[in-house]
Order: sequence, then C-alpha cells, then structure tokens
Amino acid sequence: MKTKDIEMARTAAIALLRKARIAVTAEEIETMEVTDLGLGDIKRVGVEIIVYENNDRYCAKELVLLPRQICPEHRHPRVNGRNMGKKETFRCRYGEIYLYVAGERTVRPKAKVPKEYKPFLTVGHEIVLRPGDMYTLPPNSLHWFQSGDRGAVVSEFSSTSTDENDLYTDPRVRRVRS
Amino acid sequence: MKTKDIEMARTAAIALLRKARIAVTAEEIETMEVTDLGLGDIKRVGVEIIVYENNDRYCAKELVLLPRQICPEHRHPRVNGRNMGKKETFRCRYGEIYLYVAGERTVRPKAKVPKEYKPFLTVGHEIVLRPGDMYTLPPNSLHWFQSGDRGAVVSEFSSTSTDENDLYTDPRVRRVRS
Repeated sequence: MKTKDIEMARTAAIALLRKARIAVTAEEIETMEVTDLGLGDIKRVGVEIIVYENNDRYCAKELVLLPRQICPEHRHPRVNGRNMGKKETFRCRYGEIYLYVAGERTVRPKAKVPKEYKPFLTVGHEIVLRPGDMYTLPPNSLHWFQSGDRGAVVSEFSSTSTDENDLYTDPRVRRVRS
Repeated sequence: MKTKDIEMARTAAIALLRKARIAVTAEEIETMEVTDLGLGDIKRVGVEIIVYENNDRYCAKELVLLPRQICPEHRHPRVNGRNMGKKETFRCRYGEIYLYVAGERTVRPKAKVPKEYKPFLTVGHEIVLRPGDMYTLPPNSLHWFQSGDRGAVVSEFSSTSTDENDLYTDPRVRRVRS
C-alpha cells in the first residue's frame, strides 16, 4: 500500500471520528490500524480500526469506514478448538452501514459494489444500521459491509479478537497491519 | 425509590447522552435502567445504564452518571466456579470520572463523598478518566466511582454481566431494577 494512500485514509478517518464526536487519544490516532487488506485499493476496500481493548475474554474496537468503503467478506472460524469462533456485535455510531449476511438476498441493495469485487461478496441479506442500531453476528458466519455516502463509525463489541485467523472469501486478501 | 426521583434521573441521563452525542434508540431510552441501588438517594448515589448487549461471551453498556453521582463500592466475584469473575473496561466518553481501586490511597482525591457513605468506600487509589481515557479492572477487584461536576458517560466493555452476583460493601445496597 502506498504511503500516500495510507495517510489519506488516516486523515479522512480522523475527520470522521471528529464528526462523530468520538473522543480518542493522540496515541490511539497514532496507532490506528489503516489497512487496504492487501488489495491496494483503500479508497474502495479497506477499514480503519482503533482497538480499545482486546484481552483473553472480550474485545472492543471503533471501526471507521470512509464513504462507500467496503470491508470484504469474511468469517471468524473456531480457533484451537476452544470456542465456536468470534462472536461480534456492531453498533452504528455515525453515518450508515449496509451489512450483508447469509439469508434471503435483498432485492436492490443499498451497497454499490465495483464489478471486480462482486465474485467475492457472496452473501446478500441486507441489514441497514443507522446511529443507535445494532446487529450481533453468530460465530463463524460470513459477512461484509459498506458504509453510505458519508462514511461511518461503528463500535464493535466481541469475544477475543484474533484477526490473523479470519477467513476471507477473496483469496487475495492479506489481513496484515500496514 | 420515588417515581418522581426516577423520572428526574432518567430525564437528566437522557440530556447527558445528548450532550455526549451518543446515539441511542427510543427503545433504549425507554428501557434504560435507572437505579438508586436501594438507598433512596439517587441524586447522590445511583447509576443510569443502557445495556447494549449481554450474551454468553461479552457485554457492552453505556453508563450515565449525573453530576457527582456515586456508583458505590462493589466487586464482581467468581460465579459458579466458571471464571475468575467479571472483567471490565471503562472508557470515558464525556465528562470526568474519578475511579477508586485498591492500592496506595490518593491524597486529596477529587471525589466529594457525603459523610454517611464514607465507611462503605474503602479503596482509595484514584484514577481520573477523561474523554478517551480507559481503565481495565481485574476480576473480583473492589472499585467505586463518582463523576465530576458535569456528570459523565462511560462505555463499559466486559465479559458476561450478571449484576445479581455483584457484592457491595454497603450491606444496604440492593441491586435490583427499578
């Protein structure tokens, strides 16, 4: 990922957090994860993440999505046979999120997906989250999401997070810190 | 607890959530827990709580404290031998929180405690949380907190919450929904 693109995304994410009136520390801004998931197209596919806490029992993050940015389809599988996989709740704080899960495919979905990514976004049951709305995903269930035209800030509450175990539908995705 | 006091506290809590720009649904406002913990003195001792999610693996809440309201000293003990007790993280979103835990007693603490409650607030190591600041409590550790003059909104991220098991230092406390 180009340094210029990372910095553009970081600056835009900080502006969205300000608009959403989410208080974050200077250190959190500094260490915010800004990732294009290895696809080199961060304006359209990527996510900006502040991990508040991730311990042996629970995890809390703030996710920022730039306008129309897509977090690609993935699931959180069982890890070391210990549990059913990560369970997570999304709570929209600002903007709009179009979340897609398994189930009846929504006709005329709100997401706008560039053609080249369509083969890797296979679930199509739409859930629209506006500020104050929440949705809890069962462990190991496929999901992807896109923000609306204004971008979005979403709180994620979950069991322990082990990002390196996430399984993405698009085999080109690399879940590494930039 | 008098109905008038409950409604006063509920109204003040809603105003604080608005000031903090925390988006909540009409249903969340409706079902918000407003408790004086059985002490009948909600302006000085009590807490207002919106439970976002509480499942078998994690919990997320928004806590609202009216100006100078005290959440009395308690701990989250081991339940059914299953774990070490609830582990929890506080993240200040708005206002100021003075949190007290075991450790060296802070000289000239920021909390202002009415005389009659002092015997039941035994730990005195102060942690000041301002917007964006966080603190994670180990399981089963005594703690209590008070907000500053403007009140406060605090996100609580934790393992599963079972309030009925909480142990309070003040034997008069009753942790029941009003």
